[in-house]
Amino acid sequence: MPEASADKVERWGIFELELEGEAGGNPFVDVTFQARFSHGHRNVGVNGFYDGDGLYRIRFMPDVPGEWTYETQSNCEALDGRSGSFVCVAPGAGNHGPVRVEDTYHFAYADGTPYYQVGTTCYAWVHQGDELEEQTLATLREAPFNKLRTCVFPKRYAFNENEPVYYPFERGADGGWDFARFAPEFFRHFEKRVGQLMGLGIEADLILFHPYDGGHWGFDRMSAEEDDRYLRYVIARLAAYRNVWWSLANEYDIMGTKSMADWDRFFRILCEEDPHQHLRSVHNCRTFYDHGKPWVTHCSIQSGTDNVAAWRDAYRKPVVVDECCYEGNIEHGWGNISAQELVRRFWIGTVKGGYVGHGETYLHPQDVLWWSKGGVLHGESPARIAFLRKLLEGGPPRGLDPVRWRPHWDMWGAGKGDDYYLFYFGERQPAEYTFEPPGENEYRVEIIDTWEMTVTPLEGTFTGRFKIELPGRSFTAVRMQKA
Amino acid sequence: MPEASADKVERWGIFELELEGEAGGNPFVDVTFQARFSHGHRNVGVNGFYDGDGLYRIRFMPDVPGEWTYETQSNCEALDGRSGSFVCVAPGAGNHGPVRVEDTYHFAYADGTPYYQVGTTCYAWVHQGDELEEQTLATLREAPFNKLRTCVFPKRYAFNENEPVYYPFERGADGGWDFARFAPEFFRHFEKRVGQLMGLGIEADLILFHPYDGGHWGFDRMSAEEDDRYLRYVIARLAAYRNVWWSLANEYDIMGTKSMADWDRFFRILCEEDPHQHLRSVHNCRTFYDHGKPWVTHCSIQSGTDNVAAWRDAYRKPVVVDECCYEGNIEHGWGNISAQELVRRFWIGTVKGGYVGHGETYLHPQDVLWWSKGGVLHGESPARIAFLRKLLEGGPPRGLDPVRWRPHWDMWGAGKGDDYYLFYFGERQPAEYTFEPPGENEYRVEIIDTWEMTVTPLEGTFTGRFKIELPGRSFTAVRMQKA
Repeated sequence: MPEASADKVERWGIFELELEGEAGGNPFVDVTFQARFSHGHRNVGVNGFYDGDGLYRIRFMPDVPGEWTYETQSNCEALDGRSGSFVCVAPGAGNHGPVRVEDTYHFAYADGTPYYQVGTTCYAWVHQGDELEEQTLATLREAPFNKLRTCVFPKRYAFNENEPVYYPFERGADGGWDFARFAPEFFRHFEKRVGQLMGLGIEADLILFHPYDGGHWGFDRMSAEEDDRYLRYVIARLAAYRNVWWSLANEYDIMGTKSMADWDRFFRILCEEDPHQHLRSVHNCRTFYDHGKPWVTHCSIQSGTDNVAAWRDAYRKPVVVDECCYEGNIEHGWGNISAQELVRRFWIGTVKGGYVGHGETYLHPQDVLWWSKGGVLHGESPARIAFLRKLLEGGPPRGLDPVRWRPHWDMWGAGKGDDYYLFYFGERQPAEYTFEPPGENEYRVEIIDTWEMTVTPLEGTFTGRFKIELPGRSFTAVRMQKA
Repeated sequence: MPEASADKVERWGIFELELEGEAGGNPFVDVTFQARFSHGHRNVGVNGFYDGDGLYRIRFMPDVPGEWTYETQSNCEALDGRSGSFVCVAPGAGNHGPVRVEDTYHFAYADGTPYYQVGTTCYAWVHQGDELEEQTLATLREAPFNKLRTCVFPKRYAFNENEPVYYPFERGADGGWDFARFAPEFFRHFEKRVGQLMGLGIEADLILFHPYDGGHWGFDRMSAEEDDRYLRYVIARLAAYRNVWWSLANEYDIMGTKSMADWDRFFRILCEEDPHQHLRSVHNCRTFYDHGKPWVTHCSIQSGTDNVAAWRDAYRKPVVVDECCYEGNIEHGWGNISAQELVRRFWIGTVKGGYVGHGETYLHPQDVLWWSKGGVLHGESPARIAFLRKLLEGGPPRGLDPVRWRPHWDMWGAGKGDDYYLFYFGERQPAEYTFEPPGENEYRVEIIDTWEMTVTPLEGTFTGRFKIELPGRSFTAVRMQKA
C-alpha cells in the first residue's frame, strides 16, 4: 500500500515518512518501527522514532540518485508493511553531501569537494532561547567556521548557571525525569538548529554525552539501558541530516559515571544504527581514548597543537584539535590565551598536517561567552582564521601533509608532493632563510604575514638551494607553488 | 728568604708573586713550580705558571683576612724555597668575593650578598681586537648582565670567519701549533679582559673547550696530555680572579674528539687544581651531561625554560639555562626568537626557580653579532631583563622557589616561604584571577607588566581566598608580599 509522500528528494537531502500509530502506553519503549529503503539491489535498514501525539517518523538521506522504495516493519499494525517510493534527484546548490575521511588524514564531502575543517565551539547555544540562538546563527553566517561543536544535553558549569528552555525528557509522576519518555519538543527544536547549520554549510559535531551536569539534572548518570535508548533515539532523529558528526562525549575521561566498556558500546551502537555512517569521535580531557580503534573515524583532541604530526603517525587518521585553549580572558587556563597564540596554534596544527578548532571565552556581564552560549564574537582570531581557511581552500584539494625535509628544527612546513609547500615560522623572526626543496621544480614564492593577513609575492622563480629575505617579524609564513 | 711583594692584598683580591727562573728548554713542560700559602693552621697549595721571558708567576686569592705566608717549591733552584708574607685586608667597594652555591638552588657571593644570575653570551669577544672589545666592555657597563659566557679558544663558525688577534699557542718549526708552548701574550690579553669584567661586577663563565674549530686550528683535537696541560695552565693563570666560573665546554656533546671519560677527567683536574674551587659546569647541545655528578656545582643548560622546576628536582642544584635561544633574526633556530619570547622564557625560568641567560643574534653587515663578537646591543629584551633583575634584587635574598599551590595549570609562581610570591601568566591574558595562599598572611599585591615594565599596586591588603582584577593582557605578573 504505497503512501503519499515527497516524491522527489535531493541527493543527501532528507526523505521523511510520517505515520499515525499507537499513542497509548509508552510508545518510546513499546513500539518497534523500522523501514527498509531499497535502491536496485541495495537495501538500507533505518529506525524510525516516536514524535509524540501519536505521530511516528522515519528519516532517510538517499545517497544515490534514482528511484528508491521503502517498506516499514513494526509491532504496531498501523505502522507495519507500509511502502512507497521516491526519486532521488541532483543535490541543490551548496549541498555536497556528508563529510567523509579522505586520503587517510583529510576530509572531503561525498561529492568530492574538499573539506578543510575550521571549527568552533558553542556547547550550549541551542539551550539559550530564540533571541540569542538566532544571534548566534547570524554570527556564524559571517564567521569563517565550517564546523560547530554542540552538546545535545544542557550544560551546568562556570558561566552556565541558567536552565535551558527545553529539556530532553518528560517529567514523571514524582516530578523527576522519566528517562524512558523523550520530549519531542526538545528534539524538534534541536533538529531545527542542526538544519539551520546545514543551511549555513556548517557541520554539526554533536556531543552526545558530557560531564557538565554533575547530577544537577542527572543526564550524566542514566543507566546503561537509558543511555543506549537515548543514543538510538538521537540517531533515529538526526542521522538523516547530512551535516551531522557524532562526538560521543566531551571530556569523556572525566565522566566518572561511565566506563571504557560503555564508550566502546556506544561506538558499536553508532556503527550499527547509523544508516549513513557519519564521522565518529570522542573528545578527551586529560587522557586520549584509543583513537586507533577501528570505529573511530578521526582523532578529536584537546591539547596544544605541537604534536599533531606524531598523532597522525600514531593513529593514521585525520587529527582534529578541537580544543587547543580558547581566545579569552577568564582565569581558567583553557580559556585565556591571546588571539595571537590561538592563531599560532591554528597554524602549527595546520603545517603539522592537522585541523584545529576555535573557541572564545571573554568575560561578559551576562555570562554570554561564545564558547558555550554563542552570541557575538569579540576576539581578533576569527579574521585570521578566515584568512587561513582561504589559503587552505586555495591549496591542494586533499590537504597538507608534513614536509619531511626542512633546513632547521625551529620551523615547520606542510605540502602535497613537491608542488606545494606552506612553511610557518611561529614566533620566530628570521630575516632570511635558505630552502632546498628536493627535485628540480621552479617555484613561485610568497611571503605571508599570518597576523596582518597579507600575501606578498617575491619576484621571479626559485629552484634548488636558494636563500630568500624575510620580514624578520614573528608569525610569518612562506608559500611555495610550482610555477 | 722573604721576597719583596705586595704587602697588603684585599680579601678576594689577587696576590701575585713574580720570580725570574729558567728560560731555556721548554719551561712550560720542564719546570715545576708551586707554592704553599698558609694562614694559621690552614695551608693551600697553588700552582704557578711560566709567563715567558724567564718570568714565573704564582697567583693567589686570599679568602680570609689576616696574615698569610707562602713558600715556593720548584725543580728550578731559582724558584725553589722562596717565601714571604702579606696581609689580607678588607675588600674594596664592589668586591663581594666569588659566587658560590647557596641554599641548594641559588647563588650568593662569598660575603653573603645575594647573586641573582642574569647572564649573557659573547663567545669570541676577546678575539676581536681592542676597538670592538672596548666597545663590548662599554656596552656591558650599561647592560643588566652580571655574568658573561666567553670562550678561551677562538671560534670558527657561521658569522665567525675572521682570525683572532692572538693565538693561545706558539707555532713550531714546521709552522704548525706547538701545543706544548703557550703564548703568554694571548693569556695576558685574555686575563686583562677577565679583570675588566671583574671591575664591572660581571662573572666570567670561561668556556674551556668548544667544538667550533672543526680542525681549522685543531684546538678541539689536542691529545689528552695536551688538553690536561692546557687546563692546568688556564687554572694556574686565572683561578685567582674571583669572578671566574669554569664551563668545561660549550655543546660538549657534539665534540666528537672527546669522550665522557675526558669530561670526567677534566672535572677532576678542576677539582684538584683550582685552589679556590670556583663554580664548575658543562653546557650541552642535545644531551645533558649528568649534572648529578658530585663535581658539577650547577646545571648549565641549553633548552627552553619550561622544565626548570623538574631539573631542580632531578639534580638538586641551581639551574642556569644559559641558552634558551637568542633574540635575533638569523635563520638558525637557536638565534631567531623575538624579544618578547626571550623575555617570556626569562620569566618562566625565574618563576620555576631557575636562572636564565641572554644572547642576541641580529644580522649585521660586518657579522658583528653580540652572541659571539660583542659590540653593541640592538634588541628590546635587555631593558626588560634589567627590569626583572631589579625585581629579583628587591625580592628574597636567597632566591625564589617554585610555589607548589596554584589555582590553575596555566600559570606559574615562585616565592620564599609564605611571605613573598611572584606569579607569571606568560602569553595568558586573564582579566581576573582567584588566589588562595595558604596561611593567614595579609598581602600587598602589585600588578606587573613585564613588557611595559610597570608595577601597579592594588589598594588595600588581601588574605585568604580572594579574586583580583588583571589587565587582560599577555605578559602580566603578580607580586604578593606580606604586608
